[in-house]
Amino acid sequence: MSSPETPIRIGIVGTGFIARAHAEAYRRVRDLGTGRPVELASVASRRLDNARSFADRHGIRDAMDDWRGLVGADVDLVDVCTPNDSHVEIAGAAIDAGHDVVCEKPLGRDATEARGLADRVEASTRRLFCVFNYRFVPAVALIAELVRSGEFGDLHGFRFDYSQDWGLGEGTGWKFDGVAAGSGSVGDLGSHAFDLLRALVGPIDWISARTTTVAPGRSVDDAFVSLVTTVGGVSGTVSSSRVVPGAKNRLALEITGTRGAVSWNLERLNEITVVRETPGGFERTTRLVTRSADPSIDRWWPEGHVLGWEAAMFGNLAAVIETLSGRADWWALPPADHRDGLAAALAVDATLASAADATAGAATVAPVGGES
Amino acid sequence: MSSPETPIRIGIVGTGFIARAHAEAYRRVRDLGTGRPVELASVASRRLDNARSFADRHGIRDAMDDWRGLVGADVDLVDVCTPNDSHVEIAGAAIDAGHDVVCEKPLGRDATEARGLADRVEASTRRLFCVFNYRFVPAVALIAELVRSGEFGDLHGFRFDYSQDWGLGEGTGWKFDGVAAGSGSVGDLGSHAFDLLRALVGPIDWISARTTTVAPGRSVDDAFVSLVTTVGGVSGTVSSSRVVPGAKNRLALEITGTRGAVSWNLERLNEITVVRETPGGFERTTRLVTRSADPSIDRWWPEGHVLGWEAAMFGNLAAVIETLSGRADWWALPPADHRDGLAAALAVDATLASAADATAGAATVAPVGGES
Amino acid sequence: MSSPETPIRIGIVGTGFIARAHAEAYRRVRDLGTGRPVELASVASRRLDNARSFADRHGIRDAMDDWRGLVGADVDLVDVCTPNDSHVEIAGAAIDAGHDVVCEKPLGRDATEARGLADRVEASTRRLFCVFNYRFVPAVALIAELVRSGEFGDLHGFRFDYSQDWGLGEGTGWKFDGVAAGSGSVGDLGSHAFDLLRALVGPIDWISARTTTVAPGRSVDDAFVSLVTTVGGVSGTVSSSRVVPGAKNRLALEITGTRGAVSWNLERLNEITVVRETPGGFERTTRLVTRSADPSIDRWWPEGHVLGWEAAMFGNLAAVIETLSGRADWWALPPADHRDGLAAALAVDATLASAADATAGAATVAPVGGES
Amino acid sequence: MSSPETPIRIGIVGTGFIARAHAEAYRRVRDLGTGRPVELASVASRRLDNARSFADRHGIRDAMDDWRGLVGADVDLVDVCTPNDSHVEIAGAAIDAGHDVVCEKPLGRDATEARGLADRVEASTRRLFCVFNYRFVPAVALIAELVRSGEFGDLHGFRFDYSQDWGLGEGTGWKFDGVAAGSGSVGDLGSHAFDLLRALVGPIDWISARTTTVAPGRSVDDAFVSLVTTVGGVSGTVSSSRVVPGAKNRLALEITGTRGAVSWNLERLNEITVVRETPGGFERTTRLVTRSADPSIDRWWPEGHVLGWEAAMFGNLAAVIETLSGRADWWALPPADHRDGLAAALAVDATLASAADATAGAATVAPVGGES
Ligand SMILES: NC(=O)C1=CN([C@@H]2O[C@H](COP(=O)(O)OP(=O)(O)OC[C@H]3O[C@@H](n4cnc5c(N)ncnc54)[C@H](O)[C@@H]3O)[C@@H](O)[C@H]2O)C=CC1
Ligand SMILES: NC(=O)C1=CN([C@@H]2O[C@H](COP(=O)(O)OP(=O)(O)OC[C@H]3O[C@@H](n4cnc5c(N)ncnc54)[C@H](O)[C@@H]3O)[C@@H](O)[C@H]2O)C=CC1
Ligand SMILES: NC(=O)C1=CN([C@@H]2O[C@H](COP(=O)(O)OP(=O)(O)OC[C@H]3O[C@@H](n4cnc5c(N)ncnc54)[C@H](O)[C@@H]3O)[C@@H](O)[C@H]2O)C=CC1
Ligand SMILES: NC(=O)C1=CN([C@@H]2O[C@H](COP(=O)(O)OP(=O)(O)OC[C@H]3O[C@@H](n4cnc5c(N)ncnc54)[C@H](O)[C@@H]3O)[C@@H](O)[C@H]2O)C=CC1
Repeated sequence: MSSPETPIRIGIVGTGFIARAHAEAYRRVRDLGTGRPVELASVASRRLDNARSFADRHGIRDAMDDWRGLVGADVDLVDVCTPNDSHVEIAGAAIDAGHDVVCEKPLGRDATEARGLADRVEASTRRLFCVFNYRFVPAVALIAELVRSGEFGDLHGFRFDYSQDWGLGEGTGWKFDGVAAGSGSVGDLGSHAFDLLRALVGPIDWISARTTTVAPGRSVDDAFVSLVTTVGGVSGTVSSSRVVPGAKNRLALEITGTRGAVSWNLERLNEITVVRETPGGFERTTRLVTRSADPSIDRWWPEGHVLGWEAAMFGNLAAVIETLSGRADWWALPPADHRDGLAAALAVDATLASAADATAGAATVAPVGGES
Repeated sequence: MSSPETPIRIGIVGTGFIARAHAEAYRRVRDLGTGRPVELASVASRRLDNARSFADRHGIRDAMDDWRGLVGADVDLVDVCTPNDSHVEIAGAAIDAGHDVVCEKPLGRDATEARGLADRVEASTRRLFCVFNYRFVPAVALIAELVRSGEFGDLHGFRFDYSQDWGLGEGTGWKFDGVAAGSGSVGDLGSHAFDLLRALVGPIDWISARTTTVAPGRSVDDAFVSLVTTVGGVSGTVSSSRVVPGAKNRLALEITGTRGAVSWNLERLNEITVVRETPGGFERTTRLVTRSADPSIDRWWPEGHVLGWEAAMFGNLAAVIETLSGRADWWALPPADHRDGLAAALAVDATLASAADATAGAATVAPVGGES
Repeated sequence: MSSPETPIRIGIVGTGFIARAHAEAYRRVRDLGTGRPVELASVASRRLDNARSFADRHGIRDAMDDWRGLVGADVDLVDVCTPNDSHVEIAGAAIDAGHDVVCEKPLGRDATEARGLADRVEASTRRLFCVFNYRFVPAVALIAELVRSGEFGDLHGFRFDYSQDWGLGEGTGWKFDGVAAGSGSVGDLGSHAFDLLRALVGPIDWISARTTTVAPGRSVDDAFVSLVTTVGGVSGTVSSSRVVPGAKNRLALEITGTRGAVSWNLERLNEITVVRETPGGFERTTRLVTRSADPSIDRWWPEGHVLGWEAAMFGNLAAVIETLSGRADWWALPPADHRDGLAAALAVDATLASAADATAGAATVAPVGGES
Repeated sequence: MSSPETPIRIGIVGTGFIARAHAEAYRRVRDLGTGRPVELASVASRRLDNARSFADRHGIRDAMDDWRGLVGADVDLVDVCTPNDSHVEIAGAAIDAGHDVVCEKPLGRDATEARGLADRVEASTRRLFCVFNYRFVPAVALIAELVRSGEFGDLHGFRFDYSQDWGLGEGTGWKFDGVAAGSGSVGDLGSHAFDLLRALVGPIDWISARTTTVAPGRSVDDAFVSLVTTVGGVSGTVSSSRVVPGAKNRLALEITGTRGAVSWNLERLNEITVVRETPGGFERTTRLVTRSADPSIDRWWPEGHVLGWEAAMFGNLAAVIETLSGRADWWALPPADHRDGLAAALAVDATLASAADATAGAATVAPVGGES
């Protein structure tokens, strides 16, 4: 439609934590000139003053008090940064009106919502990207490359866990409200874990799970733990929790194969530990993923300068812009799309279904459709 | 029967790795004079020359070429250090003949064997101790004390894993033979993990599991992973593997509660990591469990001198001797007995049953009987 | 002169690595509205095209091909991001022309250059800030607060080391040229280490040092190691190296006192390890410095989101802008000024003098003057 | 003199901590039949009851209340495990009477004492071994082999530190008494550090040092830190302390070369971290030194079973017995002898001399004599 030189005009919905992270990431995308030029065109919040001050701070042209003002207006990409219960409504309307969409995870509050939205995307000519930003941590991208290259031999085990501890506090806000959020740790944190499992190991076949709610009276789960088998027949565990004392943002993964193994942890996002075969036996090596040859490092600083959490968000949104510009082959993993968002939602639903069934305790994960 | 001053005469069956570890531990028990005096009376192997050279090296009086020579003879305690397929036969005969017994884990090749043996013990006036030696690592004992004291609040999660990598090699020897061993990693390594879970968190109610055999043609599992719920309603994972590259003897555990958490790993057996509440938030502390006030440290060196693997075997056999002398209240955890051996075997069987059932994937663990 | 609402107009000299880091930091200062507004007014490089493309990328108004164009022109703050041999010339001219100055470390190639520049600053009404950015890592700021609060009792030991390994390569570029750089690792990396020692422990009295040049024919040192005593009588070591295999950007410190100790490392910049007295003995705690109450974290993300290397540069330049706006009491440590730059240069010179004297091997560090 | 089959009869002087460690080590040497047979012949203490109960516990034949009873009597090897102030008297008398001697470190309270004793050994036909047991930690032995093989290229840096924290307590006992001990941390802990530096890197040329005494009124140093240059021209630091909070037995070393580096720490004695060149850059590997091919591991357990502190004492005394039997080529490093004990004492004296000289602060280390 537009020539590569026309900027992609972005409209952000929401002005909370993640909206701010998106805005800063787009600024950096713009400064680095990665893909087509981008323009921060407008921001919508429910209160105009919030939208206004957010716009001022982040160099955004327009501010408005209703997301409906963005839909059908002069923006190309609608970026949905609101609580979970409005994702499907806003993203769906934007797709229908002919916008491309960035939508925060989880795609919907459950798989039914997610499938409805995914179907609308499929029926449209537009694209939707679901923000599973941890695919864009350089270390995670490197792991994807190493797995693909056969470095670890045949995979036969894994562990994906996302633990935090803020659920041990009062637990106020929409993330503890089942109606607004859909679920607790399963949808919020587990969806990231399931997405990484899919991206790094493969599609999920089967889940046996248990959930826990530690705080009395809370309407959502605080934690879950599950035994998971992939379509390829590899078994391991996936879990998440908001109630692990001392865990701040500990998204951790381990992948094990016949010739090596790898582990990584968001709290030390620049490091990977790789076990490799050497003539003398297996050697465990730990290193910073900050070499100029490491994934996406040449968009940052010289070797050895560690990156922060926002590196993942920058990578995800840069990859979105580059995908929309037809130049995204640069990244180790593609930005997650509507099908990935749906797949994560299906895993979340299977987890909750299995946990609800005290006897059998296992649930087969419905296929996304059209996926190998 | 015998006065406290009469030595406990010990007869060891087997001269392999673990027999040597037992012999060195009994020597240290003797030197330290912990409990009743002990006397290394005899050793039996299938070949007399092996028994003879083992006896010479370890200061044992008699050597013989058949374990039957020990049974009914002048020994008080028969210590079974043979491969799994002879545990029940030798230990059972010894019990029936009126000996106390130390029997290496796993108690039998399956729960049927184990229950048969346990029943014979129950019907006798003798005692049987199953060697779950990792209960006697000072750090593990300290964890037992901390859990019991409520240090971590209400427990709501756990992970017990025992990983090694020698199964990535040729895999020769009886431990890879299903007939001699019963199972692969599940019975060999998993039984330790299940025992620690029971000792530290509580009895097991429910297991959903998957096993893997990586090496073609191998008759036993190389690894398993499971979702486990205790009778008390706490869910977590238990797993073991002989095919994790770089894992040498990595028996690792994590226990999580509402007010704290703890983790430990046999490859760094002197250290624990404890998360505790402080006024400023949760703090993760790591320290050596080598303070003079730490469990069993006063039987070793001054503060700060790290211990090796054999500390656990010493502790277990010292506790057995002290239990037989009526003075074992000193230890944080009791030495495992026939019921503990059976309970581990039941968990092993439930694991294998669940893994064999591709659909439901879950199995309820039969109670040991008479256990809360 | 100007009202608080007038923006501070910034002119950057240089377009290399650190110029880019400054530009991104100023952008974030501007977006966050910390202190007076800032305006990226111009950039000067020796080649106009470089200046131009740098200006485009970073939203800078003017580009020019000679730093002399900035001096006396419509900028308030001149920011010197050129190689060491031009620091004194450019910064001195800017001070004389009435600009405030940000000057990259080291202040000069030696203490004579640095003292000359410092004297010009003293004689002027302007301010000069020397970029010792690691003062602004949140963990370092927290350490400053903890030391000050007496948390560690009386300090009696320290270790400051800055190791990298790129000197094991070819070693091309001005940083390996003694004329352009002044010295090798001592001035480049050691100056950061000496500055942190001064900021956290106190002024330096005495240095005994040895230098090493590993690569044949190289005109600068590759590494140094020194025994250092502070004016307060605390002894420890300071060292730096470009030839430590596997060290990428390992600025590491340890401070030891009678009641506790602390350590930190730039390669894991979000973590500190603190040893504290507890009723049971000393406990070593390791945690992420990403709590909302931790220094400067509220300018970033919610708790638990780790920061990258650029956090320090942002903090330093934000503190400079706030200092120039009269509102910098917010930071744990002030931005380093001309006296701090001179003090580091004096330590560098004493190091080189001691290392050159094979017999006595020790040198007293000249006082900056006017310092307690 | 005696045939290889005649046992080496050992007489131990002292019944404290280290005497017990020696006794247990000799028992294991005897059980493993390493070198000539050994016989625990007698033990002398100042109180007969102590000697008696020590003898009972450790299977020693005779007990006596004066070490003079051992000298000239029916023992081959006199093992001196008393406080420092009696080392020279007892060891010297034993040498003069024709015994081989094992003497605990430090050889004397100062280099004068040590040289006197060393001269008596040189003038005799007997051998004296000074117990620098940390040479016999398998990881340290492996490091010696790796350094020797050129694995790390040309060495250009090192750090040896031995830190503990018990000096923060009351500080009672002879180790805090300058007359009985000679010095504080320098002779007690620093002597181990200096010995390892000599054994792994080379003889010491030059020391510039500072000492600290934290506790008021204490007659010995609590800590020292020094800049050290070897005869081969490599500079680094050596330090020790009894007042580092949280350090229990932290003997730590780092050795750096042009092609790699290694580090190790007694608190995790089974692990080494090695940095090596790989095609992709330097890789840091951490592993357990418990492979069957690792130094002295085949005298312990199967692969992966970690060792404790006593492994070093066992190795040292086994190597002594094997050396006396003419079969010690098996070990990576020889057991330290009188010259090594003297060399450590000379380094201790140079450290104290340098620290006492507030101006120049450096001291050349006198050569042992006859050493390259
Ligand atoms: N990918 C990631 O790493 C993360 C993703 N998220 C996701 O981002 C989304 C937002 O989370 P946070 O920013 O943490 O929440 P937040 O509560 O900080 O912000 C939500 C924002 O949405 C606005 N909002 C609510 N309803 C709206 C409406 N109808 N129209 C316009 N604005 C509306 C609120 O005013 C607020 O500004 C969630 O879906 C969450 O799952 C959140 C944090 C991290
Ligand atoms: N608790 C722990 O940490 C460990 C426990 N084990 C257990 O110890 C047992 C033995 O294992 P390893 O010592 O590693 O095996 P191994 O193969 O090294 O030794 C087995 C010994 O039993 C002897 N033996 C076999 N059949 C016999 C018979 N009928 N009569 C007398 N001796 C006989 C063999 O000659 C050999 O000396 C196993 O049940 C194993 O599960 C093994 C290693 C560690
Ligand atoms: N505080 C910190 O963490 C760091 C500080 N630095 C310091 O920053 C300074 C620059 O280092 P890098 O950026 O790494 O070097 P660089 O070589 O990447 O960049 C130097 C820049 O200065 C420009 N330049 C040279 N002479 C000039 C002149 N006469 N007029 C205008 N521009 C000129 C060059 O064209 C180049 O753009 C050095 O003094 C260095 O010590 C460098 C890296 C980190
Ligand atoms: N190599 C190593 O790792 C270690 C070496 N040591 C060294 O061992 C020596 C002894 O230290 P510890 O055992 O810790 O001290 P300790 O105070 O525990 O034991 C000293 C023993 O010597 C005895 N003793 C004192 N004077 C005697 C005399 N005239 N005749 C006979 N016995 C006498 C005492 O009764 C006591 O049994 C010291 O030289 C120390 O430096 C100590 C600990 C570790």
